[in-house]
Amino acid sequence: MTNGNGSNLLHARRIALDTHDEPVIITRRDCPVCRSEGFSSHARVRIQAGNRRIIATLYQIESELLERGDAALSESAWNLLDVEDGAELYLSHPQPLESLSLVRGRIFGRPLSKSDLNAIITDIGAGRYADIHIAMFLTAMATRGLDDRELIDFTGAMVDAGDRLQWDRTPIADKHCVGGLPGNRTTPLVVSIVAACGLWMPKTSSRAITSPAGTADTMETLCPVDLDLPAMRRVVEKEGGCVVWGGSVRLSPIDDMLIRVARVMDLDAEDQLIASVMSKKVAAGSSHLVLDLPYGKTAKIRSEAEAKHLGERLARVAAAFGLQTRIVRSDGSQPVGRGIGPALEARDILAVLDNQADAPADLRQRALTLAAELLELAGAAPEGGGYALAEETLSSGRAAKKFEAICQAQGGMRDPTVAKRSFGILAPRDGVVAEFDNRRLGRVAKLAGAPAAPASGVELHVHLGDRVVREQPLFTIHAEASGELSYAREFAASNGDIIRLE
Amino acid sequence: MTNGNGSNLLHARRIALDTHDEPVIITRRDCPVCRSEGFSSHARVRIQAGNRRIIATLYQIESELLERGDAALSESAWNLLDVEDGAELYLSHPQPLESLSLVRGRIFGRPLSKSDLNAIITDIGAGRYADIHIAMFLTAMATRGLDDRELIDFTGAMVDAGDRLQWDRTPIADKHCVGGLPGNRTTPLVVSIVAACGLWMPKTSSRAITSPAGTADTMETLCPVDLDLPAMRRVVEKEGGCVVWGGSVRLSPIDDMLIRVARVMDLDAEDQLIASVMSKKVAAGSSHLVLDLPYGKTAKIRSEAEAKHLGERLARVAAAFGLQTRIVRSDGSQPVGRGIGPALEARDILAVLDNQADAPADLRQRALTLAAELLELAGAAPEGGGYALAEETLSSGRAAKKFEAICQAQGGMRDPTVAKRSFGILAPRDGVVAEFDNRRLGRVAKLAGAPAAPASGVELHVHLGDRVVREQPLFTIHAEASGELSYAREFAASNGDIIRLE
Repeated sequence: MTNGNGSNLLHARRIALDTHDEPVIITRRDCPVCRSEGFSSHARVRIQAGNRRIIATLYQIESELLERGDAALSESAWNLLDVEDGAELYLSHPQPLESLSLVRGRIFGRPLSKSDLNAIITDIGAGRYADIHIAMFLTAMATRGLDDRELIDFTGAMVDAGDRLQWDRTPIADKHCVGGLPGNRTTPLVVSIVAACGLWMPKTSSRAITSPAGTADTMETLCPVDLDLPAMRRVVEKEGGCVVWGGSVRLSPIDDMLIRVARVMDLDAEDQLIASVMSKKVAAGSSHLVLDLPYGKTAKIRSEAEAKHLGERLARVAAAFGLQTRIVRSDGSQPVGRGIGPALEARDILAVLDNQADAPADLRQRALTLAAELLELAGAAPEGGGYALAEETLSSGRAAKKFEAICQAQGGMRDPTVAKRSFGILAPRDGVVAEFDNRRLGRVAKLAGAPAAPASGVELHVHLGDRVVREQPLFTIHAEASGELSYAREFAASNGDIIRLE
Repeated sequence: MTNGNGSNLLHARRIALDTHDEPVIITRRDCPVCRSEGFSSHARVRIQAGNRRIIATLYQIESELLERGDAALSESAWNLLDVEDGAELYLSHPQPLESLSLVRGRIFGRPLSKSDLNAIITDIGAGRYADIHIAMFLTAMATRGLDDRELIDFTGAMVDAGDRLQWDRTPIADKHCVGGLPGNRTTPLVVSIVAACGLWMPKTSSRAITSPAGTADTMETLCPVDLDLPAMRRVVEKEGGCVVWGGSVRLSPIDDMLIRVARVMDLDAEDQLIASVMSKKVAAGSSHLVLDLPYGKTAKIRSEAEAKHLGERLARVAAAFGLQTRIVRSDGSQPVGRGIGPALEARDILAVLDNQADAPADLRQRALTLAAELLELAGAAPEGGGYALAEETLSSGRAAKKFEAICQAQGGMRDPTVAKRSFGILAPRDGVVAEFDNRRLGRVAKLAGAPAAPASGVELHVHLGDRVVREQPLFTIHAEASGELSYAREFAASNGDIIRLE
């Protein structure tokens, strides 16, 4: 009804406004379209340009910065509409958001059917949910929890909303760590070992949700990770493996939209985690999957019982989509390796690949264990023979060579950057390292700027059981900006028990 | 640490950007402050100007529209900081939002203590919660529900966050309708009758949450309602009553912040409703309160049992703060009066006050019943004698005179505006009016532009039991913008059973 009619036409203006991923359109309060259509500020409006349509949040301005017939678009809206400066935009009222009543029903206790979940995920994928609505959906799910049927349907809806990879061979190996343990960056090592042994492992990884670094953040300090689907396929066909950012290949793209809001909420909910992990795996076409579940008092998973429960739910969802899985429950009482933050973790990975004498032994050990399970599960090593094969592949330098080849294939290997500023946190007295608070240590790294500033974070100098003397450095804070360095220092200074001495 | 230090100084620029109430600051991506402090887009930043501080959402721009040392503020940020063009702004990282962990705890099942609720409400009041966080808090509360102790503490925290009126006399009369019934605009009538009988009734009302009009929206078409506290007091001391917008007198200001987000969520949750109502009443210094709870299949309250449950909870919270209450449960099966929308409802009120022959009898009847209960509860009429007193006060014209005097005292009485456009919806066949869908009727009024466009809405021509002939008008849609009129028409056309004929 409102299309093709000149009265609701505006012309697009680019002002390079970065609102992160929320599409925003700014018009003059006195623009004829807003008057005739009755749009008010903070409304949601539908924008059509060519054959593309999005829903955006409308802000209004009283200023000569814009002409009355112009509309400024945020970068996210600009890219979604794929327009040029001056392009014709048609504004109209969006359809009522029917699926929101399903979310409200869920808040008040009604279950979500498969078609309910599909309707919600479809509307989110079409950009019809404002951030407030996504927050409402995530909270409603987190509060009541999903049962197995809902969880499988939620996962399936996420898969259906994006692209899906098909591979002309099997097995397709995959691994995933639920995270929560600073520095536990085994993925690039496992991919290198497994691919060097001839298996295919097309790995997609996420960026940090509430942690100082995700695998994609760390890998990005070593080579490009935002490959599209054809580019990712070329890397895997050439080298047998890759480590790319899941968001840029559009595997389960809804997951990234949910994660963006969950990050502002600082919320890690079990159902969302399971659907996030499994939708990526199903969409990536994986057939054999090893899951790493580290648990500990201050890890994301607090106890072995919780790890067992989560592992069983993950395995049930995996089975529903035909994936074979092995669960590895590991010690999560202290960080792994030395670095916490993208570039600092990348240095640890390079040290292990190079078989350096001072490479972090714990990181090496964990990577070998996971690679071993995956080699056995996927049939590349006999039962009980995976560890020896993985160890030999790493020690011989074949894994390092494979890693370099993957980085080159992804667009070129580079050195991780070094932060401009650093500050050492010293032991307040003699003692033995008795306990780590992983959460607050992660927070120091985040306050220092990780993951947005990739060279920032925490470099650990001690592990559990180490004997230290007064004024010996416990860890070093690295930062790129002085404000962030002082903020992380202040937090560390007022939290002297992050590393508890006995 | 970051204050008084020139390196994080920017100069304020006003661009009259209306982002509704969300404070937004826009800087250039290459501004020195953002670089040195490590701010990224969509971050939350603390802004200090003079001795005022707010938290705002940061957007970044790559454009010559701003100088590198400038920062554009949204109108909401501009007003909160109370700055002039070019004023010095100091940006820094906000403190970590500790109270958000209490909201997360609530999501995962932990109860909220009194101090938890105070901490959350204090942070919301200080503008530290982004809309996403408020949505998370409202959803978490709605999903698990609050017990009586939590509900009383939540209400108390909302009261403490704002101003509180003290009156040097007692009783202070008050009434409240939980809403959900289109056109049920009795408040201006009840205030006029009760004040004309010598009681004091300093009434604060809200704007619409999910309905086409709130009492404040309707009253605003007749006189100003955004009075500050001293102005409201002057009106009450002169005339014994007032009807002002609760938001502008800062009684329970958090309530308005929650309602703004709840409106986008289209969520009406019981606990939030009770805390909203009772915090306003306690803060207004009320001592005697009549509550109107209309129920019906498509009203906000669906059944008499639900109305009873809600009434008891409201009364328990009221008692905890020393208020005496009476609950009136009323029929909510059809709209009250003729108008649905601010100005259309105002016309009904004027007709009742003027004792016009064609004034809506149902609206008159309801107002008299509520006024009668309030006169008895507050001791202005003997038990059983309230109705006769209310009726005499209205019929004699004393209520109308009081209403005019209140409007004049609030800033001057005016005529409600008339919409430019209208369209009649006709009966598809002969029949008897058997059922109203209040929700969808309210939606027609909202699609037509209510409450933002005050003259828009629905004018009803029939009530339950009326006999109609084919093509007789059932209702008329009024709208100010052509886009809104056609949108409301389309919805009405495809929902022919909003008024069901038998």
